[in-house]
Amino acid sequence: MAAQRDQDLDKLKENILKMGGAVEDAIKKSIKALVDRDCVLAQIVIAGDPVINAFDVEIEEECIRFIALWQPTGSNLRFVTTAIKIITDLERMGDLAVDICERAVELCIEPPLKPYIDLPRMAEASQKMLKESLDAFLKGDADLAVRVCVADDFIDNLNQQIFNELLLYMIKDPQTISRAVRLTAIAKYLERIADHSTNIAEMVVYMVKGKVIRHMACEPPRT
Amino acid sequence: MAAQRDQDLDKLKENILKMGGAVEDAIKKSIKALVDRDCVLAQIVIAGDPVINAFDVEIEEECIRFIALWQPTGSNLRFVTTAIKIITDLERMGDLAVDICERAVELCIEPPLKPYIDLPRMAEASQKMLKESLDAFLKGDADLAVRVCVADDFIDNLNQQIFNELLLYMIKDPQTISRAVRLTAIAKYLERIADHSTNIAEMVVYMVKGKVIRHMACEPPRT
Repeated sequence: MAAQRDQDLDKLKENILKMGGAVEDAIKKSIKALVDRDCVLAQIVIAGDPVINAFDVEIEEECIRFIALWQPTGSNLRFVTTAIKIITDLERMGDLAVDICERAVELCIEPPLKPYIDLPRMAEASQKMLKESLDAFLKGDADLAVRVCVADDFIDNLNQQIFNELLLYMIKDPQTISRAVRLTAIAKYLERIADHSTNIAEMVVYMVKGKVIRHMACEPPRT
Repeated sequence: MAAQRDQDLDKLKENILKMGGAVEDAIKKSIKALVDRDCVLAQIVIAGDPVINAFDVEIEEECIRFIALWQPTGSNLRFVTTAIKIITDLERMGDLAVDICERAVELCIEPPLKPYIDLPRMAEASQKMLKESLDAFLKGDADLAVRVCVADDFIDNLNQQIFNELLLYMIKDPQTISRAVRLTAIAKYLERIADHSTNIAEMVVYMVKGKVIRHMACEPPRT
């Protein structure tokens, strides 16, 4: 019985990892599409979103079946209820990658505004946060989860910096407004992607330590 | 036993309603703060956010206790797992009301850009969606839930209209840019609030009918 239950749990973890991989891939490609002005790649990401959505539905069903079948209590119950919430965050990150691609497609038909430096940095940092928040969840590693929360400040600062820079472009030359507004939107999408990773990380700390750090400023781990 | 279980379930529903009421109130006041240029009201909403956050933590605990204690299956299990997800949406709507208030505070110290007509309409429509999506959840009313999804189009159109109007302001007079950008952000926050209600409504349809309408365009109910 317990062996079968553990096997079901492993299968669940594996599917969450697969879903996380698909979301990470979508974010990576969405920024590549923007930087390379590659409309086709953007459309591929948009067309791939139903795969992420299907993961969401499938994994939620798996979680509910797990509860109904194994009637878990304690840490297993908390793991599964956390999983139900985490996949919602992952699915919405997939939607944000689609939003980035939609803006990228709109920007493809306009002349480039400036070389992209900070947006790819932001995208890279938010992918790292996603990967680490899922690692923290699957390994039950609260310290790693806290580090993810702390990394969110870097993203927020970059977003503010990008916003200020683009505001200057708009003020200097109103012809840049429609492009600059789209780029501020993309920075905001990346910030929201990082927020979702922070949500996941906060849930992990709660799951492991029973300590609520969501709804509070994250504190770095004490050494 | 069953009577106690039903009592626990009623208590859970009551708390979700209370949380929904607090979120609705925060949204309403955030727009009132913007329209009346009332910084104090905005600060009151910001200061009240921990109450909404506390509901989130408390209701989630209640859900987990309910599962551990009553080991529900079938519709009760699905109700509780849906509740766990819905309170996350409610909590994030509370955060968005705080975001609106932060922009309202920033706008208080600048001269008014224009009278607000569409933003209050958007706010009103999104409050209605929130109220109805929770009604649909608590009554298990899938038809009402579908109507909520359909209402989301109205909000999306208003958001686009507000964006286009403010873009014209910015292009005509760069001095309006920083205010106009803040107002487009507020419209976007309201759109996201409505999206959360749509998420709730889609979960309700799934809970009641087992039919996945999330990740698809909503269809109006067939009569």
